[in-house]
Amino acid sequence: MIPLEGMPEVEEGADLGALVVGAVRLEDGDVVVIAQKAVSKAEGRVLRLDEVEPSEAARRLAADHDPRQLEVILREAKRIVRSRPPLVIAETRHGFVCASAGVDASNAPEPGTLVLLPLDPDASARRLRARLTELTGRAVGVVVSDSFGRAWRLGTTDVAIGAAGVRTLLDLRGRHDRIGYELRTTQIAVADEIAGAAELVMRKTTGVPGAIVRGLDLAGKGNARELVMPPDRDLFR
Amino acid sequence: MIPLEGMPEVEEGADLGALVVGAVRLEDGDVVVIAQKAVSKAEGRVLRLDEVEPSEAARRLAADHDPRQLEVILREAKRIVRSRPPLVIAETRHGFVCASAGVDASNAPEPGTLVLLPLDPDASARRLRARLTELTGRAVGVVVSDSFGRAWRLGTTDVAIGAAGVRTLLDLRGRHDRIGYELRTTQIAVADEIAGAAELVMRKTTGVPGAIVRGLDLAGKGNARELVMPPDRDLFR
Repeated sequence: MIPLEGMPEVEEGADLGALVVGAVRLEDGDVVVIAQKAVSKAEGRVLRLDEVEPSEAARRLAADHDPRQLEVILREAKRIVRSRPPLVIAETRHGFVCASAGVDASNAPEPGTLVLLPLDPDASARRLRARLTELTGRAVGVVVSDSFGRAWRLGTTDVAIGAAGVRTLLDLRGRHDRIGYELRTTQIAVADEIAGAAELVMRKTTGVPGAIVRGLDLAGKGNARELVMPPDRDLFR
Repeated sequence: MIPLEGMPEVEEGADLGALVVGAVRLEDGDVVVIAQKAVSKAEGRVLRLDEVEPSEAARRLAADHDPRQLEVILREAKRIVRSRPPLVIAETRHGFVCASAGVDASNAPEPGTLVLLPLDPDASARRLRARLTELTGRAVGVVVSDSFGRAWRLGTTDVAIGAAGVRTLLDLRGRHDRIGYELRTTQIAVADEIAGAAELVMRKTTGVPGAIVRGLDLAGKGNARELVMPPDRDLFR
């Protein structure tokens, strides 16, 4: 795990690929993990609070917090899963279930702005991967990561919300253990484990927006949409 | 991340510390991640199915699966969270919410046996840590890991069910980003990210029961019980 140190603050229109290549020498098989916040800023997914008019629903959910922020969360949410004002757990357009529908004021470009999730984080990962290949000729994978809370467990872990050129689910179905028993754990969310591993070397408060995970041998097709539980298998809808 | 290769099959009463030390040279600050299955086997947390008499409730939940296995799951469960026969998501005595209350037939010592979670995985971690210190004089952390599914996301990730000598939750409350905004993500479940990172180098089908994660600077007090969401903060009970 190699942190992407020395990257400048990411601004709208930034060439993320060039910034990554300027921070680290890539090798074939590397997985480049890049924080959602950096991707969203580069893509201009930033909103000024003073341009937001809160609805009545947003005012109700806000309790004594800023109703404009709740308004943006409601706009980004496809479905509210749980709320305890001002905390909102929501399903996003991508199918992710997370706090505030991914809307966040921390590490925003300036006070009074909010950062939203990329519209299509898998597409963001594909674009970054193509740019990295163009710049270096290396075959790498890309994971766009974000910090999600979990049901029943305290604290966040970083997970993959976008991916390209890397396997996201490792399917062990049909494989057997040493005594011949078919494995219970049939699918491992390796892209989420990669995102979490990268988080361990990214220090949020000092602005390291990504890391390289090297030596995993997980190159392949994959996208983060595969990591969303299909509704018919979801016992927690 | 260094896999613990060459470790023999773990049997009841095994000296896990000696097995770890035989597989890798430890350094100060290392976190030794050891699979729950290895710990449970060493502690004799193995049950023979032919000694289990299934109850009526177990028969109902079993559908066309083995009702004796469901009986064991019900005995290990403090609370059934969801069930879609034969799938059972249960809360364990430790407060973990996971499939089958952690009861598993894969990688069991022999056909017809089930492996249960350790009675107190934090105590297991403390014992292993004390033994490692005794054998090597090194100051290391220990994480006992298991593969858990997640609500809303497909695939399992390894998480920490026991820990000693390593911080499990990194508390960022009160820390601020570069523009002075107090961080939203106030607690990071670093022990879960460590367990997931270790999984990436443990290949289940070939029996590697652990890995070392080196260079993290996360030595400290911590236990996995802290990672259980307190009921009063749990929106998903």
